[in-house]
Amino acid sequence: MSQISLSSQQLPVVLVLAGHDPSGGAGLTADSEAIAACGGWALTIPTALTVQNGDDVQRVLPCRGDDMRAMASVLDDFSVAAIKVGLIASLDALDAVVDIIQRYPGVPLVLDPVLKSGGGTELYTTELIDACRDRLLPLVDILTPNRYELACLAGDSWDNDTDRAVALLSLGCQAVLVTATDEPLPNTSSECVMHTLHTPDNGRQWHWPRLPDHFHGSGCTLAASLAVRLASGESLIQACEQAQSYTWQSLRHGWRPGDGQCFPRRLWRHSTHPFSME
Amino acid sequence: MSQISLSSQQLPVVLVLAGHDPSGGAGLTADSEAIAACGGWALTIPTALTVQNGDDVQRVLPCRGDDMRAMASVLDDFSVAAIKVGLIASLDALDAVVDIIQRYPGVPLVLDPVLKSGGGTELYTTELIDACRDRLLPLVDILTPNRYELACLAGDSWDNDTDRAVALLSLGCQAVLVTATDEPLPNTSSECVMHTLHTPDNGRQWHWPRLPDHFHGSGCTLAASLAVRLASGESLIQACEQAQSYTWQSLRHGWRPGDGQCFPRRLWRHSTHPFSME
Repeated sequence: MSQISLSSQQLPVVLVLAGHDPSGGAGLTADSEAIAACGGWALTIPTALTVQNGDDVQRVLPCRGDDMRAMASVLDDFSVAAIKVGLIASLDALDAVVDIIQRYPGVPLVLDPVLKSGGGTELYTTELIDACRDRLLPLVDILTPNRYELACLAGDSWDNDTDRAVALLSLGCQAVLVTATDEPLPNTSSECVMHTLHTPDNGRQWHWPRLPDHFHGSGCTLAASLAVRLASGESLIQACEQAQSYTWQSLRHGWRPGDGQCFPRRLWRHSTHPFSME
Repeated sequence: MSQISLSSQQLPVVLVLAGHDPSGGAGLTADSEAIAACGGWALTIPTALTVQNGDDVQRVLPCRGDDMRAMASVLDDFSVAAIKVGLIASLDALDAVVDIIQRYPGVPLVLDPVLKSGGGTELYTTELIDACRDRLLPLVDILTPNRYELACLAGDSWDNDTDRAVALLSLGCQAVLVTATDEPLPNTSSECVMHTLHTPDNGRQWHWPRLPDHFHGSGCTLAASLAVRLASGESLIQACEQAQSYTWQSLRHGWRPGDGQCFPRRLWRHSTHPFSME
């Protein structure tokens, strides 16, 4: 019999509850890739299938909550160390997401609210936003909205992003990392994008050189790489910083397959030549 | 505005039609990861969702053929250069797979027949095997069965694997790469696994050191990495050899999350420390 033995190394496991995107730019395959690229292992439970390309979402097909629960129920071989939640497209799927999260008390939860497609299609109803705010936000360790999503979740009562973030913290969410790549464009005077972390105690800002073009999947990449860093035991500040760095590099090395949006290359380190890794 | 510009590099694109596996060991997330790790880009259309872990498949939920066709219809931004087909769990899904393949005439097609779970659950009916043989095999450039799958597809009329492979070639399939990791175990005298390529003109054999344990997702890893190499223009022989090498290394660096099967690490080059890549 072979004398070769496998490593006994264990990997930080992230449970992903997210939509599936056939284009590979976003959704659960993107999350899985980002998590693997950052040294972790992804379990993925689809919350919805979608018909979409880089530019817009044509249809969303929510998965059945009971199917999602069944998928989660047989993964006990894995020690889940963080959870990342993305698109939730029905109240039935939200119920299942909440049930599944509650199987893992004390495990860090990253919520990337997916409210609108790149092409502008709304992916949430008011009823669903209200239900997420009431049932999901109090379980969240860190929320990663862009400015549009922040405004949707916080509602109309606030004048600025800090007040909106404080409003979400008051609902039980532990931290909010607001990304600002969706500032009104073109903004020729702005060569940087500023991302802001809000916590009850303090905050932190990071500035990143603005990249040209629009990307499909930047939010997923950020939230997934943040989750695997929390799974590995990094502090919140360090995890936020490293996840932004990884995401910026993935975008910087992105590619454009056609005339539409650009796509992150989450394994750009492999990319000088397709098969240079031999 | 930013002076940073993106690379104009184009990636070899593989269209994956396969099942989804929440454990990440096999299925479309595994395919996507292998394709990205080998320098390509994966588009993924789910043929089925599943309830499974590393050890067995509890339920298979076939996707609707019309949903699969709709997903494929909006991916025209991408120049598909190879197709990889995995699990097909219903006649409706098979119809859709055949329709989608026919959108891409002349594009190399790799079929990894998924007929049984690691735990022994049959995933095909006789009717479905017959339909795959009649409608899908004639479109296939290379089939990647293990010995069990080869016997199922070829039927009972043959005495040995070469005759079985020749029978499948006579149905219109262009090449058959038979993997033999599923030889009866324990076979203490066999320190090597032999994989055999059969083509109408000739053949080729490769021997690989046998690895301990059972793996979940080795077949997906092989077929996906073979597809991206064909997408990149490699010859059939070279693509088979490089894909086997990549797969063997992924298994060699595999890990075991619990007491059950082992899982390939398709990004093992990143793996000395989870975050050593910074």
